[in-house]
Amino acid sequence: MKLSGQEEFDVYSAYENVPTGQLDSGPGSGSSPDGSPDTHSQKLAVPKDPLLFIQLNELLGWPQALEWRETGRWVLFEEKLEVGAGRWSAPHVPTLALPSLQKLRSLLAEGLILLDCPAQNLLELVEQVTRVESLSPELRGQLQSLLLQRPQHLIQTTNTRPCWGSAYPREASHDEEAPLKEQCQNSLRQKLPPGAEAGAVLAGELGFLAQPLGAFVRLRDPVVLGPLTEVPLPSRFFCLLLGPPTLGRSYHEMGRAMAVLLSDPQFQWSVRRVSNLHDLLVALDAFLEEVTVIPPGRWDPTVRIPPPKCLPSQHKRLPSQMQEVKGPSARRGFPAEDRQGQPPHPPSPELQRMGSASPLCSTFTWPPSLMPSLLGDCWEKPPMVLRDYSLDYLPFRLWVGIWVATFCLVLVATEASVLVRYFTRFTEEGFCALISLIFVYDAVGKMLSLTRAYPIQRPGSPTYGCFCQYPDAGRNESQWTRTKTKDRDDILSTDLGLVNASLLPPPECVRQGGHPRGPGCHTVPDIAFFSLLLFFTSFFFAVALKHVKTSRFFPSAVRKVLSDFSSVLAILLGCGLDAFLGLATPKLTVPREFKPTLPGRDWLVSPFGTNPWWLSVAAALPALLLSILIFMDQQITAVILNRAEYRLRKGAGFHLDLFCVAVLMLLTSALGLPWYVSATVISLAHMDSLRRESRACALGEPPSFLGIREQRLTGLVVFILTGISIFLAPILKFIPMPVLYGIFLYMGVAAISSIQFTKRVQLLLMPPKHQPDLLLLRHVPLSRVHLFTAIQLGCLGLLWIVKSTPAAIIFPIMLLGLVGVRKALEWVFSPQELLWLDELMPEKERSIPEKGLEPEYSFNGSDSEDSELMYQPKAPEINISVN
Amino acid sequence: MKLSGQEEFDVYSAYENVPTGQLDSGPGSGSSPDGSPDTHSQKLAVPKDPLLFIQLNELLGWPQALEWRETGRWVLFEEKLEVGAGRWSAPHVPTLALPSLQKLRSLLAEGLILLDCPAQNLLELVEQVTRVESLSPELRGQLQSLLLQRPQHLIQTTNTRPCWGSAYPREASHDEEAPLKEQCQNSLRQKLPPGAEAGAVLAGELGFLAQPLGAFVRLRDPVVLGPLTEVPLPSRFFCLLLGPPTLGRSYHEMGRAMAVLLSDPQFQWSVRRVSNLHDLLVALDAFLEEVTVIPPGRWDPTVRIPPPKCLPSQHKRLPSQMQEVKGPSARRGFPAEDRQGQPPHPPSPELQRMGSASPLCSTFTWPPSLMPSLLGDCWEKPPMVLRDYSLDYLPFRLWVGIWVATFCLVLVATEASVLVRYFTRFTEEGFCALISLIFVYDAVGKMLSLTRAYPIQRPGSPTYGCFCQYPDAGRNESQWTRTKTKDRDDILSTDLGLVNASLLPPPECVRQGGHPRGPGCHTVPDIAFFSLLLFFTSFFFAVALKHVKTSRFFPSAVRKVLSDFSSVLAILLGCGLDAFLGLATPKLTVPREFKPTLPGRDWLVSPFGTNPWWLSVAAALPALLLSILIFMDQQITAVILNRAEYRLRKGAGFHLDLFCVAVLMLLTSALGLPWYVSATVISLAHMDSLRRESRACALGEPPSFLGIREQRLTGLVVFILTGISIFLAPILKFIPMPVLYGIFLYMGVAAISSIQFTKRVQLLLMPPKHQPDLLLLRHVPLSRVHLFTAIQLGCLGLLWIVKSTPAAIIFPIMLLGLVGVRKALEWVFSPQELLWLDELMPEKERSIPEKGLEPEYSFNGSDSEDSELMYQPKAPEINISVN
Repeated sequence: MKLSGQEEFDVYSAYENVPTGQLDSGPGSGSSPDGSPDTHSQKLAVPKDPLLFIQLNELLGWPQALEWRETGRWVLFEEKLEVGAGRWSAPHVPTLALPSLQKLRSLLAEGLILLDCPAQNLLELVEQVTRVESLSPELRGQLQSLLLQRPQHLIQTTNTRPCWGSAYPREASHDEEAPLKEQCQNSLRQKLPPGAEAGAVLAGELGFLAQPLGAFVRLRDPVVLGPLTEVPLPSRFFCLLLGPPTLGRSYHEMGRAMAVLLSDPQFQWSVRRVSNLHDLLVALDAFLEEVTVIPPGRWDPTVRIPPPKCLPSQHKRLPSQMQEVKGPSARRGFPAEDRQGQPPHPPSPELQRMGSASPLCSTFTWPPSLMPSLLGDCWEKPPMVLRDYSLDYLPFRLWVGIWVATFCLVLVATEASVLVRYFTRFTEEGFCALISLIFVYDAVGKMLSLTRAYPIQRPGSPTYGCFCQYPDAGRNESQWTRTKTKDRDDILSTDLGLVNASLLPPPECVRQGGHPRGPGCHTVPDIAFFSLLLFFTSFFFAVALKHVKTSRFFPSAVRKVLSDFSSVLAILLGCGLDAFLGLATPKLTVPREFKPTLPGRDWLVSPFGTNPWWLSVAAALPALLLSILIFMDQQITAVILNRAEYRLRKGAGFHLDLFCVAVLMLLTSALGLPWYVSATVISLAHMDSLRRESRACALGEPPSFLGIREQRLTGLVVFILTGISIFLAPILKFIPMPVLYGIFLYMGVAAISSIQFTKRVQLLLMPPKHQPDLLLLRHVPLSRVHLFTAIQLGCLGLLWIVKSTPAAIIFPIMLLGLVGVRKALEWVFSPQELLWLDELMPEKERSIPEKGLEPEYSFNGSDSEDSELMYQPKAPEINISVN
Repeated sequence: MKLSGQEEFDVYSAYENVPTGQLDSGPGSGSSPDGSPDTHSQKLAVPKDPLLFIQLNELLGWPQALEWRETGRWVLFEEKLEVGAGRWSAPHVPTLALPSLQKLRSLLAEGLILLDCPAQNLLELVEQVTRVESLSPELRGQLQSLLLQRPQHLIQTTNTRPCWGSAYPREASHDEEAPLKEQCQNSLRQKLPPGAEAGAVLAGELGFLAQPLGAFVRLRDPVVLGPLTEVPLPSRFFCLLLGPPTLGRSYHEMGRAMAVLLSDPQFQWSVRRVSNLHDLLVALDAFLEEVTVIPPGRWDPTVRIPPPKCLPSQHKRLPSQMQEVKGPSARRGFPAEDRQGQPPHPPSPELQRMGSASPLCSTFTWPPSLMPSLLGDCWEKPPMVLRDYSLDYLPFRLWVGIWVATFCLVLVATEASVLVRYFTRFTEEGFCALISLIFVYDAVGKMLSLTRAYPIQRPGSPTYGCFCQYPDAGRNESQWTRTKTKDRDDILSTDLGLVNASLLPPPECVRQGGHPRGPGCHTVPDIAFFSLLLFFTSFFFAVALKHVKTSRFFPSAVRKVLSDFSSVLAILLGCGLDAFLGLATPKLTVPREFKPTLPGRDWLVSPFGTNPWWLSVAAALPALLLSILIFMDQQITAVILNRAEYRLRKGAGFHLDLFCVAVLMLLTSALGLPWYVSATVISLAHMDSLRRESRACALGEPPSFLGIREQRLTGLVVFILTGISIFLAPILKFIPMPVLYGIFLYMGVAAISSIQFTKRVQLLLMPPKHQPDLLLLRHVPLSRVHLFTAIQLGCLGLLWIVKSTPAAIIFPIMLLGLVGVRKALEWVFSPQELLWLDELMPEKERSIPEKGLEPEYSFNGSDSEDSELMYQPKAPEINISVN
């Protein structure tokens, strides 16, 4: 692989990194008093070319009312003025007609080229540009006054920021050239980084010209050319394309072609450095060499192509001079994989034996005990078994905890985390799918058990069979009890002969000293279906709110809030619905007191109790299995969290994490508290909520992921709040359980939807011709993809079966078996297939790609195939976003 | 406007029309014994160029194991061989690099051009092509044997159709050149129309060549060149591009460029007619003039662009010779508007006074009476008013019917349908939105009234207060009645002192001769929430199934069935759920006997009854209003159904329809049957179910709408089944009402989602920068769009208010007022704005577009702006698809 994080394209990354800088230094940073590009570029390690804003001013209204009007603007993508609608179009990929580029080339070849022109203002510039032999003095004067005419801009103004005019008092002296008020208030300025420069292209048809007039100017020092550009940026480039009226809009199209050329990073780089016309034309020809051509009739040229989510790599287009500059500037945390899609995946230093661990210790080991978990499922049987033999559970549990802590400490001491390198995507996906399925299964199962607790009243079922009997009546109470032995129908049809009874509802009856009697007294109608409604409502509402983020409605701030708090809002809606109808749905129960639940036991668990001594030794066996489970769970979670694509800057703490887990196991065992609970889902949810993204801007670049807000505050607060929740009983008791089950279902579904495994399972149901154009499918035969998916499904099924049977205790070993299965797959699949279907094992990734990507056929190793591999838009392997 | 239905591009439409022919003549038509292209083209009025299938065979394996392999194929879009995966890619828009086109041009310019080559088989062709001076006899022999080598094709075989080999016995004689079995079984053949020709491009790098070898051959008579192409089609073109090994895959890319050129309709047209090299290069240059160029770095060239839904118009690319051919061949029902998006909207002959109507009479006037309708809402008050004055309703209704019929006949006689031309999209959308809202409102309203009929049991509500009392007991029955006068709580706490009672459920109690007593006897628990669940289930299930059609899962036949029967399946699911739980939900009630519902009345309504004579005259006033409503409803429905975009071939019957309605009004009034019910929604749903679409094919062209299966059978069957439904009571009684309400909700929501008005209402909620790139928004200022939407919303609100108040009787006049409002809008909006926001009124469409589309600014009337207007992909104004 030629690519690595080192090969970053610098002009590009200058633009790329700007939003970070803006975020760091706050919104006011753009209005720095000097605002010169030099001070900004000094902040970066290597001087970079400033960002270029290009504007096309078009000459309209010939012959009656000549005026200049801005009709297009570019940074990376094109924005077009919608004249009729009076608005700027959405940014889109510019498309050109080939003849306009060719005409532009010949106009430039014959035109005036001024490189490093010393003009200090628009007047001087115009004088320089019009010094052409073909123009008579009269025409020259006419042209000059035309060029000095103030152009029309469609400016979306804002009043939040001061005018740059003050930063450039030199230009402000010339009245005609002072930046206009609306120029200074242009909201576009906030979106351009400080130090940006402008390029102005002036194009149009001018009747009094006998022959075309082309001029290209590179200013020695960029200056604000008065009201020429809509944003008062210092202009570096100035291009004039005028000529006698022609058929079509050739000058408009030539102007667009010039603007598109200038917005190309490579052409920009060249044109800042060229020293003569020839070099300029060479740069233009290099541009032409690389354009993509769409044949006519296959594509509607009026369709505007939205900016792609992922731009192609620029590394191949890098001039050699630029490649020298790169390298030292590549910063940690900004690897190039987002551009190329292929994570460079350096061997993580944390996964090599090194003797010391970083101080970052994950605190996510205390989720609410009602969260579904792997450990709970595997560990629910031992207490029952122990009770069968009249042994004390808690002392045994204490010993298990002691052993687990010991084993974990041994794993820490031997730096066993190096074994994590054998966990590939195959293992991770199996683990993640299993946890997600447990969420889904538990949510649905608990919901169904609710409908059993509140049975549905079918016609003929004895809903009505309940009355209130008062004990102080003369009748014998046993009369009811006596007839109870008969079958139900008989009971009901018997003459009851009660004289001291009423039809009060059961609670009221009890309050008045009576006894509710009859088969229908303990049924609560309507709860089952209402619970189902709440369950579905909270699930679908959470799903819908999560998707609000990508909808077109509402401002993005509103969408972000709705999406970020989708679970909370769904719970609130559920609680609101429940409170509105006032039904007796089962609610969340929170203990009111801080004390051991088991009555009569101490805070500390006695180490032996009534158990024989050998049980303390025997506890080592279950502890070994438990240690495997905890090790795998904790390490897989840590591996996922520390993936390169998350761009964590602080180091990972594989061993310190495990050490913390060991200490906590000891503590919780001694106190009889719940043990360790799988942290994968909540940890990923937490990290997802801490993502930093660059702001989406008018320039059309999609918001890019900048990293994670790495801190310990939110984690700490989350778990302090979890602890405080025991004091929140008065509030929490209003939350109906079905609402929580709906949210668990949503979390499970969201987690399982995000893994590549699920996408491959979906492929099983798709006819080949309707399958999406996954790069995976371009390179691996479908039958092999299906085979791989089927093996994964089989493993998952086996794990599920083991987990559900009394053999659950060996489940951790089965889970570890996934690693072996993955290893065995190397006998079934070729390295190349595994490269596409699975991540390679870390120790091989340096050798295999070089070999594995070698062409299978002689025509397969060419440029275009190569680049496909490099742009591979692989999804992050597990990307659970639940909140 | 330059465009009309006449300007059809013929090469294009040849391809376009083929699937029609296939459908008409059945699947066996492709295997006609001679299969020659001439017999097929004779069927069409004008001879058309055959469809061209182009295949790229690439030379691989140099230097060890040379072999030819098919790596790409084209008809209109490109399919690429995924070598690793062993499959064909999805069809996509081909993209080329500019240098490959330029290299191809120079190779052709220096190469061998054989036009109208008389070769009869591959051997002869290869001999002709290799007759180049630069080759030594030895090399020539080597090259010839290489060219005769059998290429590798990736063929998806099928065994359903006989081999073309038999149709070409001439070629079968030469063993080497006989089509292979898998060629004949290639499933691709079924997708190519009869008469299609092939073009073969052979490209690759050949080490023993000293200089490039380019050859382009047009065969005089197309012949099957043995196993050269994967489909045994007669080849017309043959292109050879060989040369010494170079850097990159330039011969592969040149081969692709040649194939893309050949797949271009205009180049194809030219290259079939060129007579020398110069003309060939001119055609290539013409192609280059029209390519769309995407600058590098803005677009990832490895992204495959899916075929656009709507191809750009070819009319501008039409050579003048081709334009002469067009015209007479333009058939009715195939106007060009689908290509250009702008319906030419010829003044419909039915909307001009002409004295005779077509025989097509809509039969859609008898929907089930439980369908929500406009008429029902406006007409529910009269019976009550009449009863207040002790007047007989049915005789009055008969007279209204007689008057309505009279008015309708007058409208028919005066050919009043010409007024329909004043109904623009504004009117239609208002009408459609109103009907859809009635569906939604009625569905939700009736659902809520169900929850009132089956109240929810809140804690403390007297669910339990019911017992069964036997009358044969000694006690006085009045005891209960007596205490009933007290308030509820007292009743319940009273000592009832009943001795002869049981707790049987009410129905059982009645069966055993007892009386259910108590406040809780009439409540049925669980029904309310279960009904809600059924309501939502059937709604969401219908929505989800409808969307299955566009999902990627399942084969398209399965998807089509699921989507077409979404409503039926949703009803079945609802019934199944209901039957499974066995709850006493309210069910659909269907009369069991065929007799007047009102007891004691005759089949025929008496013309006067007890009413005074003047009431027969007074009935004219409501009848007038009713006639307006019926006229508008029937005419708007007919206008929508007869839109040009539906491509109906049989004429419309505006007046005959109205005549039928008049006769039916008379009949139903005399028999006291329900009157006319708005047919808009079901008629459109019916038409939608009769759409004919070309099959989606591997060639990448989206399935195109071919027309409507125009017949009267389904309509007749639908209404016969509706009539028979009275005998289906034993089946229909299992359908729960909430399920039906869910389906009505779905129909209403589907109908209202399909109109442009809804899209504009959504714009109100979108921040401008997130709005979709609608052409409307490119040309009309957003504030004007919002104003238009707000006016429509206001009108709709006013109509809704009128409909809901006692003033509902004047509703028809208000509806007619919409036409006036639209007329008044011409004072508020410019004709240009109305052109984008609304359809023009038919009588103006000939004048305004010419004027209205004139450039507002001098640079606005150019080619590119023009073409935008022409490609405007306007949505059909109302496109209700409910089933």
